[in-house]
Amino acid sequence: MSGEENIDFHFQRIQSKAQNGVIQPILTDLYQITMAYAYWKSGKMNDQAVFDLYFRKNPFNGEFTIFAGLEECIKFLQNFHFSESDVKYIRSVLPPNTEPEFFHYLENLTANDVTLYAVDEGTVVFPKEPLMWIEGPLPAIQLMETPLLNLVNYASLVATNAMRFRLAAGPDKTLLEFGLRRAQGPDGALSASRYCYLGGFDGTSNVLAGKLYGIPVRGTHAHAFVTSYTSLSDVKTRMLMRKDGSAEVDFISLCLKYQEELSTVLPFLPDQVNKGELAAFVSYAQAFPGGFLALIDTYDAIKSGLPNFCTVAMALWASGYTPQGIRLDSGDLSYLSHMVREGFNKIANRYDLPWFANLNIVASNDINEDTIHSLNQQGHEINSFGIGTHLVTCQKQPALGGVFKLTEVNCKPRMKLSEDVEKVTIPGKKKVYRLYGADGNALVDLMTLPNEPEPKVGQRVLCRHPFQESKRAYVIPAKVEAIHKTYWVNGEVMQPLPPLTELRAKTMNLLKTIRQDHKRALNPTPYKVSVSTGLYSFMHELWLEHAPIGELS
Amino acid sequence: MSGEENIDFHFQRIQSKAQNGVIQPILTDLYQITMAYAYWKSGKMNDQAVFDLYFRKNPFNGEFTIFAGLEECIKFLQNFHFSESDVKYIRSVLPPNTEPEFFHYLENLTANDVTLYAVDEGTVVFPKEPLMWIEGPLPAIQLMETPLLNLVNYASLVATNAMRFRLAAGPDKTLLEFGLRRAQGPDGALSASRYCYLGGFDGTSNVLAGKLYGIPVRGTHAHAFVTSYTSLSDVKTRMLMRKDGSAEVDFISLCLKYQEELSTVLPFLPDQVNKGELAAFVSYAQAFPGGFLALIDTYDAIKSGLPNFCTVAMALWASGYTPQGIRLDSGDLSYLSHMVREGFNKIANRYDLPWFANLNIVASNDINEDTIHSLNQQGHEINSFGIGTHLVTCQKQPALGGVFKLTEVNCKPRMKLSEDVEKVTIPGKKKVYRLYGADGNALVDLMTLPNEPEPKVGQRVLCRHPFQESKRAYVIPAKVEAIHKTYWVNGEVMQPLPPLTELRAKTMNLLKTIRQDHKRALNPTPYKVSVSTGLYSFMHELWLEHAPIGELS
Repeated sequence: MSGEENIDFHFQRIQSKAQNGVIQPILTDLYQITMAYAYWKSGKMNDQAVFDLYFRKNPFNGEFTIFAGLEECIKFLQNFHFSESDVKYIRSVLPPNTEPEFFHYLENLTANDVTLYAVDEGTVVFPKEPLMWIEGPLPAIQLMETPLLNLVNYASLVATNAMRFRLAAGPDKTLLEFGLRRAQGPDGALSASRYCYLGGFDGTSNVLAGKLYGIPVRGTHAHAFVTSYTSLSDVKTRMLMRKDGSAEVDFISLCLKYQEELSTVLPFLPDQVNKGELAAFVSYAQAFPGGFLALIDTYDAIKSGLPNFCTVAMALWASGYTPQGIRLDSGDLSYLSHMVREGFNKIANRYDLPWFANLNIVASNDINEDTIHSLNQQGHEINSFGIGTHLVTCQKQPALGGVFKLTEVNCKPRMKLSEDVEKVTIPGKKKVYRLYGADGNALVDLMTLPNEPEPKVGQRVLCRHPFQESKRAYVIPAKVEAIHKTYWVNGEVMQPLPPLTELRAKTMNLLKTIRQDHKRALNPTPYKVSVSTGLYSFMHELWLEHAPIGELS
Repeated sequence: MSGEENIDFHFQRIQSKAQNGVIQPILTDLYQITMAYAYWKSGKMNDQAVFDLYFRKNPFNGEFTIFAGLEECIKFLQNFHFSESDVKYIRSVLPPNTEPEFFHYLENLTANDVTLYAVDEGTVVFPKEPLMWIEGPLPAIQLMETPLLNLVNYASLVATNAMRFRLAAGPDKTLLEFGLRRAQGPDGALSASRYCYLGGFDGTSNVLAGKLYGIPVRGTHAHAFVTSYTSLSDVKTRMLMRKDGSAEVDFISLCLKYQEELSTVLPFLPDQVNKGELAAFVSYAQAFPGGFLALIDTYDAIKSGLPNFCTVAMALWASGYTPQGIRLDSGDLSYLSHMVREGFNKIANRYDLPWFANLNIVASNDINEDTIHSLNQQGHEINSFGIGTHLVTCQKQPALGGVFKLTEVNCKPRMKLSEDVEKVTIPGKKKVYRLYGADGNALVDLMTLPNEPEPKVGQRVLCRHPFQESKRAYVIPAKVEAIHKTYWVNGEVMQPLPPLTELRAKTMNLLKTIRQDHKRALNPTPYKVSVSTGLYSFMHELWLEHAPIGELS
C-alpha cells in the first residue's frame, strides 16, 4: 500500500468513525475543565463521585420519553482521551500560572476508573429517574458531563418525537424521514435519521445514514426533475425493455395510446396535461421501471399530475412492470388523496386491475404530528408519510432538558436545593424498579436506597411521591424489573450493544407495556415515578439539614 | 514515524477536518441519486442548469436574515467526490438493472464544471432573492442540492438568531453561547458556536469550537462544584501566593476575617451562609485567583452566595488580585441582579473601592430573546448573558426553509407553479442589486434580467413587486451594489474566505445599513425585494404560458 493510499484508507476509516458520532472529550464546556483544575488543585482528584443523568419533564407535552444515545456514550468512554494538541489548546486558554502537572493529568486521563450504569437504549423512561448514573473520580466524571448530555439529549428527543408520529399515524402506515436539508447541521441530520428509525420510522432519504446504520433508504424525484423537461422530445429513447426481457416496446407510443384511453376514464383533457411533466414521468419510468413513484403536484395534481401518472403506470403495466404510486407535496392532503384514490379506483374498475386501487399515496408537505391527527379526523387515503423539518428539528420542543447532577461524594449524599421544587435533586445512589401489573402493563417506577430489599412479586410495597407527603399508594407487583444494568466498568463494555434494527424492534415492544392513556397525544395521564419510604425519609432529612431557614420581615 | 503513530496522526488530522464540517456528497437524499440516474439515462447529463438557493420567509417573525455557511459550501465543492465505498453502497440500493456506466460517472464526478455565485457570508439577506445560484451540468448540481441546503439553512438560522439576541441585549452587553449540552448533536453544537459568534456573540463555552474556529472560550464552575464541598476542611491548603509573588498569605484566615467584617456591611449572619459553598469559592479562587467569578445560587443567592462571594473577593483583593463577579442561574433575574448590585455598591462605599460596584453580573437561566426584552423593560443590573438552549436550537423556529429551485435549463427559463403564490419560483438567471439612499441605508433590493442595464446612481429606476401588479415605486439610488460574486469556477475558489473574526466584524457593520424599523423585534417593517419591469414581464408571460386554465363547475 503506497503512502497516499494509506492516507486515503485512513481518511475513509476515520471519517466514517467521526461521522458515526464518536466524539472527543474536548467537545465540552470550558467550565468542566476549570472545575477539573480546581478539584485537582484542592486535592479532590480521587474523590469518588456519583452523578445522575436525568430529565425533569417529558418533551412535547407528553408523558413518556424514549431513551437513546447510549451506544454513542459507551463509544465516547472507550475513546476518552485528550490528545496532545487538545491539551496544548487547553493550556493556551487557562491562566499562565496553571500548574503544568495538571496538563499531564489531563493527558493521561481515561475512562477506565469510571463505572456507568444505564437503562437499555430504547427503554421508555420518565422524569426524575436516572437514565444513567456514573461513578468514579470527581474531576474525570465532571469532564464527561457535557458530551454525555449532548449525546443523550437530542437522541432521546428525536426518538421520542418519531415515536409520537408513529403513534399518531398508526402501525400500518409507512413513515419516512426526509429531514436532511433542514436538520441542524450535517451531524444533526445523521443523528435524526438514526434515532427516528429507532423510534419507529421505516426508512430515511439520507443516503449516508443508510450506509452507516443500515437504515432502509427511500426516494424518487423532486419538482426540479419535472420542470427540467418541456416535452416528449426531451426523452432520449422511445423504447423500454419488457420486464421479461422478451422485447423492447415503443414506450412513448404505448403511453400516448393509454393517454387517449384514460381521458375517458378519469376524465381529463389530453391538451391540458403538462407535456414536460409527462416527459419527466416517461424518463423516470424508463430509468426505474420497477420503482415508478411520481411526484404529481408540480403543475396541477388532479388535472395534470394524476392523468400523467396513470398514463405511464398503465404503459408500464402493459410492459410487465408494477408501478408504485404517487407523492403529493402541497395542497389539501385529505382532499387530494381522496381525489387520487378515486382516480385509481376508476382505473382499477375499468381495467379490472384491483392492485391499481391500492397504489401507494405518499404525502410530504411540511407534516407535523398535529397534521396527522387532523388528517385522521378528516379522513384520508394516504399510505405513507414523508416527514422532514418538524420531525428532525422537533419543532414543538427542540431540546430535551437532560441534566447531570452530583448525588454523592465519597459515599456522602449531595443535594442541590432550589426554590423551584422541580429542580431539587434526589440525593445519593439509588436503585430503580419498574413494577408491572398482571396485565403486563407497567404500573409505577420505584426508586429505593441501594441497601433496601428489592420489591417482591405478589408483595405489597408502598410507593411515595418524592415531594408531596400525602401522595402514597400501595402496589402489589406481578413482575419486578431492576431497570439499570452495568454498562461500563474497568474499561470494559459489559452489555451487548445490539444493532439498530434490533433496538428498533425492542423499542416498539417495550412501548406496548406502557398504558395507552400515558401515550395519547391529548392530555395524557402522567406515569408515576415514586420513591420508597426509606428514600423519602433520607432525602427529606437531608433537605431540612441543608435548607436555610427564611426570615419573614 | 511508526505505523501506529501514523494512524494516530491521520486520525487527528482527519477527525478535525470532519469536525470542521467538510461533508461528502453521499450525505444527500436518495432522490438526488435516482434523479441523477434518470437524467443520465435520458441523455441529460450535460444539460446546463441553473438553480437558485433562497428562502421564502425570514425566520422568527423577523424581517431580516444573516446569510451564513458559505465557506463550508465552498469546501464541499472542493471536496466533492464519491468514494469507491460510497458508490458500492449506492449500487447496493439502486435496482440491479441500473447501468454500470452510471456508477463510473458518479465515481468520476467533481464540482469542476459548476460555477457558484453567492452573496458574501454575513450579508443581510431577504426572502425570494438568491443567496447563491449555481450553474453547470444538471445531474451534478442536482446532487449538490441537499448538502448545500443543509450547510446554509442551519448556519443562517442560528446566525440570525444570535443577531436578534445581540439587538435585544444592546452593543455593550457580553453575550456568551452556552448551548453545547442541548444542541442537536455534536456537530449541531459546533455549528451553533461558530455561527453565533458570526452573528455577534462574544464567546462560547464550547472548547472544541474555540480550538477549531478561534472563538474566545469562557466558563467558570457549576452547581456540582459547589455541592461537592461541605466545609472549609475540604480545602487542601490554607495558603495563596500574593499576586506580586512577595509572600504566601493564609487565605482562609483572611476570608474569615472579611466574613466577619462584611456581615455588618451587607448584612448577613455568618452562621446562615453555607460552609460548603464558601469552601468551594475558596478553592476556586485558589485555582483561579485572577479569574474569580462565582455561581452564587446553589443554596440561596442573596443570603449565602452573595456574602460568600464578597468574602472571598475581598480576601483576593487584599492579596493583590481583582475578582471578576458572579453568575445567577435561577430565580427572578431582574430582582436578584438589583439585590446583588446593591450589595456590591455597599461594599464599594464602605471600602472606597469603586471597581467593586462594577463587578460583573452574569445571568444564564434558560434565557430567550423575549426574556431579554422583558428584563430591559423591568430594569436589571446584568452585564453578561450566558445563553444556551433557546439560542442554539432556535426554539422560536428551529429550521430555516431554504429551498433550491431550478430556474433554467439550456438557457431556457423554468418556473415551478403553485396554487400558493409564495411557492412560485422566479425563473431564469437574475442579477440582484441593493440600492442605497443618501443616508447610507439600504432602500430596496432589485432583481433584473441578466442583460438589462444596471441601475445607475442618481437615476430613477422602477422597482416592482414580483407578484402584485399595482405595487410599484420609483427609486433614485445614491449607491448601487451588485450583491453576488463569483465564488467558484473551473475548480477554483475566486474570492477570499475571511477568518471568522473578520466575518463577524463585517456582519456587524453590514447590519448598520439596514434601517432600524426592519430590525426591531415587534412588528418590523418588511424590507422590499423587487423586480425590474423587464423581469416582471418575463416571469408573468411565462406564468400564463404554463398555468392550466381552470374550469368552474
